[in-house]
Amino acid sequence: MRILVLGGDGYLGWPTALHLSQQGHDVGIVDNLIRRHYDEEMGVSSVVPIRQLQRRVATWKEVSGNTIEPFVGDLNDHQFVTRVLQQFEPEAVVHFAEQRSAPYSMIDREHAVYTQVNNVVGTLNLLYAIAELNPAIHLVKLGTMGEYGAPNIEIEEGFIEVTHKGRTDLLPFPKQPASFYHLSKVHDSHNIMFACRIWGLRSTDLNQGIVYGQHTPETALHADLETRYDYDAVFGTVLNRFAVQAAVGYPLTVYGKGGQTRAMLDIHDTLACVELTCNNPPAEGEYRVFNQFTESHSVRDLAERVAKVGSGIAGLGEVRIESIPDPRVEKEEHYYSAVTTKLPALGLQPHLLSDETIAHLIETAVKHRHRVNVEAIRPTVNWRTTKSEVSVSGGAVGE
Amino acid sequence: MRILVLGGDGYLGWPTALHLSQQGHDVGIVDNLIRRHYDEEMGVSSVVPIRQLQRRVATWKEVSGNTIEPFVGDLNDHQFVTRVLQQFEPEAVVHFAEQRSAPYSMIDREHAVYTQVNNVVGTLNLLYAIAELNPAIHLVKLGTMGEYGAPNIEIEEGFIEVTHKGRTDLLPFPKQPASFYHLSKVHDSHNIMFACRIWGLRSTDLNQGIVYGQHTPETALHADLETRYDYDAVFGTVLNRFAVQAAVGYPLTVYGKGGQTRAMLDIHDTLACVELTCNNPPAEGEYRVFNQFTESHSVRDLAERVAKVGSGIAGLGEVRIESIPDPRVEKEEHYYSAVTTKLPALGLQPHLLSDETIAHLIETAVKHRHRVNVEAIRPTVNWRTTKSEVSVSGGAVGE
Repeated sequence: MRILVLGGDGYLGWPTALHLSQQGHDVGIVDNLIRRHYDEEMGVSSVVPIRQLQRRVATWKEVSGNTIEPFVGDLNDHQFVTRVLQQFEPEAVVHFAEQRSAPYSMIDREHAVYTQVNNVVGTLNLLYAIAELNPAIHLVKLGTMGEYGAPNIEIEEGFIEVTHKGRTDLLPFPKQPASFYHLSKVHDSHNIMFACRIWGLRSTDLNQGIVYGQHTPETALHADLETRYDYDAVFGTVLNRFAVQAAVGYPLTVYGKGGQTRAMLDIHDTLACVELTCNNPPAEGEYRVFNQFTESHSVRDLAERVAKVGSGIAGLGEVRIESIPDPRVEKEEHYYSAVTTKLPALGLQPHLLSDETIAHLIETAVKHRHRVNVEAIRPTVNWRTTKSEVSVSGGAVGE
Repeated sequence: MRILVLGGDGYLGWPTALHLSQQGHDVGIVDNLIRRHYDEEMGVSSVVPIRQLQRRVATWKEVSGNTIEPFVGDLNDHQFVTRVLQQFEPEAVVHFAEQRSAPYSMIDREHAVYTQVNNVVGTLNLLYAIAELNPAIHLVKLGTMGEYGAPNIEIEEGFIEVTHKGRTDLLPFPKQPASFYHLSKVHDSHNIMFACRIWGLRSTDLNQGIVYGQHTPETALHADLETRYDYDAVFGTVLNRFAVQAAVGYPLTVYGKGGQTRAMLDIHDTLACVELTCNNPPAEGEYRVFNQFTESHSVRDLAERVAKVGSGIAGLGEVRIESIPDPRVEKEEHYYSAVTTKLPALGLQPHLLSDETIAHLIETAVKHRHRVNVEAIRPTVNWRTTKSEVSVSGGAVGE
């Protein structure tokens, strides 16, 4: 299958592109390389060094014999979007190409507006280009479980049957997103659902949980193929960030009570879910939602797991946990339960969180710990204010 | 109360500003005057001639003795937004300042992107400015009943109690908007609800039905104070458009079966609802939704009402109804029921649709019928295509 991976230079886009290429698909990558620019803005870097996109695809060609065609450009440039779709002629487009950090979107007005315009307009441009050029293209869109928030009922996969005053309808599951970033994904979901309805497009919205892990079978083949590993308070997601904190002897920072429970999955499963989705496209005009996660954990439980595993690694000493005031506006204790049956029904075999995975993450961070700027770990973006300071003293640590 | 009316040069914004001024409030108007530019773009004009904003407020001063301060500028210019809020120091901001035509948003990619960016970013800028300058300001936001679509259950006011698998929660009512314009209002609603939650803002989202009518007690005081009266397929809303069609002897164009049922209200009630809302602000941090309409009608029934009344007006002859293919993607027959209790509870006394109102609308159009460009009546924007042609041969008809 010809698959275009948008955002194919990022944390998940890159290993997904490699995985799809390894499985025999013809893969192209579209990226404006802005994720690297965010690092410059924040004064941080991936714990594991990553190569430039051009070098990545060249090494992949050497290692695997497979070609991945890179297209450098911006989805907000609609002529570029049209040109790439015309040139590559994809059967599926996997869309990771959005600003994906909640704290980044909450820095100030400029970052909120940037996140919503960038994400919404990029996706609109894509919908129009697909409708105009080839409505049969399957749009595989990365959403987030964070679109749902934390309702007091079980979260269904995109739609819920509601019986009200004696009448029944299947309706979009109500959304209660918790940042301007999460809101941008909710906006996207509504726009995509509508485009499928009016133009007969086919799309799968993958409401993904928080991903952890850094190695995949393909990225492990050569140092040039490594993917990002973020630990900073803006782009570092919870488990990866804890592993780096453990590696550098920084207490694991739990926000508030730590009862925040989130759907999660191993990076291996992200790759498998995307491929299963591509291989099983929806019908013409169908908009469907898959909840893409394998297990749920509270932040407190994750911290305890990482502390236990880290404390057992020689040379690290005892890993401590520190509760700090929650910079976000969110429930610190709440009911959380979400359904995920559609991806398992397509054949997903989950990799559940193991101590080995945690140890491997910590050990990877230990190997590169001279690259960690500990100033970037403590959260500086506060949901309650309209303007946060994010400059990191010390700046990015090079090789 | 000091009230700033955003979009105060438009069809509803202008009479709302006059009404609030007449009731003794200190009123300011913010408008970028873009609605007048859309007319130029489409090659149409309001059936009733309207004066420039500066003349409007000067005449209002002469007629009423009251000052309305005009601020000409764009909500997408955040420095302008901040400056106006600092200068005027409003207690309430009534926000009509959005691109409000569904067909306009469906013309092509450029118009879809413009509508969503213009509406969403304008509202984001406003939320930030309010949070920074004075979170106590009450944001009265114009939403639309079209945000809900046409679900098979009764539409509640913004939130619905859902019981699911033995658990219950009060959740945002699911949204199924039917154009990129309606989607922009859904995006706004989600953004506003979030801003209230994190910053303690107070906002009322007025999900308004389709408004009909053109005269209000204040606009009737002087010809300079008249508000817009649109009939074209892009900006003309259903009842007003039918009245103009009847006036010029053009068959009433019903889209498809005409079973589309919509919540509606008289322009008098719009003014009353906005004032009642301003006078009864929500609590700090509260985001509430009022369904702002008084009755529901199917398009077919409206056409029959207008045809009957029009056929009885001397000199018009028999008013015919013509069914044309629906240019929109929507259900042509469906269940429709929506709750509206909150505005009546505040004291709203509805003006229900009367034959007198219809006759008055038709007679107003008859008086100005030389200004109608009949070429602009038939819909040219089709939801099923990504690019529609909207230029009108003949162009705008002047005085």
